[in-house]
Amino acid sequence: MAYGRLVVVRRIHVIGIGAGDPEQLTLQAVRALRSTDVFFVLDKGEVKSDLTRLRRDMLDTHLPEGGYRVVEARDPERDRRAGGAAYSPAVGDWRSARAGIYERLIAEELGEDESGAFLVWGDPALYDSTLGILEEVLAAGTVAFTYDVVPGVSSVSALVARHRTGLNRVARPVQITTGRRLAEGFPEGVDDVVVMLDAHQTFRQYAEDDIDIYWGAYIGTPDEILVAGPIAEAGPRIERLRAEARERKGWIMDTYLLRRNPGER
Amino acid sequence: MAYGRLVVVRRIHVIGIGAGDPEQLTLQAVRALRSTDVFFVLDKGEVKSDLTRLRRDMLDTHLPEGGYRVVEARDPERDRRAGGAAYSPAVGDWRSARAGIYERLIAEELGEDESGAFLVWGDPALYDSTLGILEEVLAAGTVAFTYDVVPGVSSVSALVARHRTGLNRVARPVQITTGRRLAEGFPEGVDDVVVMLDAHQTFRQYAEDDIDIYWGAYIGTPDEILVAGPIAEAGPRIERLRAEARERKGWIMDTYLLRRNPGER
Repeated sequence: MAYGRLVVVRRIHVIGIGAGDPEQLTLQAVRALRSTDVFFVLDKGEVKSDLTRLRRDMLDTHLPEGGYRVVEARDPERDRRAGGAAYSPAVGDWRSARAGIYERLIAEELGEDESGAFLVWGDPALYDSTLGILEEVLAAGTVAFTYDVVPGVSSVSALVARHRTGLNRVARPVQITTGRRLAEGFPEGVDDVVVMLDAHQTFRQYAEDDIDIYWGAYIGTPDEILVAGPIAEAGPRIERLRAEARERKGWIMDTYLLRRNPGER
Repeated sequence: MAYGRLVVVRRIHVIGIGAGDPEQLTLQAVRALRSTDVFFVLDKGEVKSDLTRLRRDMLDTHLPEGGYRVVEARDPERDRRAGGAAYSPAVGDWRSARAGIYERLIAEELGEDESGAFLVWGDPALYDSTLGILEEVLAAGTVAFTYDVVPGVSSVSALVARHRTGLNRVARPVQITTGRRLAEGFPEGVDDVVVMLDAHQTFRQYAEDDIDIYWGAYIGTPDEILVAGPIAEAGPRIERLRAEARERKGWIMDTYLLRRNPGER
């Protein structure tokens, strides 16, 4: 006696895979990898083969028996010329373009009873667009799926762990922001600021202030570089190491914590 | 032919063990657990037996063969009456008292060629005193050791993963702060604020504003409670559920994200 068609719904995992050290995968992430049929990989068309290889190694390690598919797609170009006030709209267009691609990937490449996954470096909650894009695809209503989020060790946590320091000082706040925002001024009301997505070494703007920097690149990988100290001293060293590494590898992923002496204000 | 005495140094791991779900342990954390001889457990003397059991279950799961010791100590009482400006000094005294205890634990309970570990809920970088205390012990210079930090999935990442939302909105900052700070006013320059250590449901202060709250308690455990919505609507529900749960279990660990409509300012 059938009461109706069994409702099958595509299932998607958004999996935080840690900041670069494959050992930073959580047991929950490993379990999610193992329950995935299709991995979606959006290629930025850049020379980030190291990252691609790291990700592939993770799959080889945890799914040695195979049994999964990897579907690659080309990320739409983002208009990086847009600056200042134009930043958000440009990001918006780019997200919509990506939403179209995600929708097609899910509809065409994922069987109705299958599980797909997007692997996100660090933690999907910090400066990553995957969740926003999936919500956009759901809102469009053309393809049905459910999704869950597997939190990961963020590059922020990984950075300060390697420097063996905390993010906040006792009972004080910490702000996480972008290089672009930092360029507009040191954030109000906080002395501890983590800066992500900074292609311009904006910390140089604060070399005159009594601020320590805890900087790291390629954290948790064999290429890891760490530098800490007052900006005035550590800054030039970071600039040099960063330029060298970027030249050598063709790309860089770095982040830093700025810690202002509260007496400074 | 001996060139001198081999230098043996006590080794300590500060291990982030995730926000409550034992599956949030990273592979790196599991490896650190397995290389530990002595686990130091500081008992707060409160009825948090659930947390103690969760931790013991983790050890049983990952170290089924035993071979380790667990050393328990009583945490010094913290002067919780101190309010306002007196907060930091009281915390300072309490940290020094803890430093004395940690020093004794390490000197007396850890053999010179052994590894010890402190297990920290969430990520050791966020509102946890272990790293600061270890630095204080090292500075005192009476016991020598080296230590490393294993980053963990923070309760902040776990919270927003369960709510399937990000911490920041596109290209915008996020601040992590305390209930005490939030009571002094909504932080300047940010619309996304994560609040920790809030025993007073300070979000109620903002019930008139156009702010969404994403709240969670006992995240990742079987007792998990999640509520989201505009503060005006979700707030009273959170108050009721929080009081009930606290009454039933004798303790509560909760945190929340406040997301202000940017149009509000």
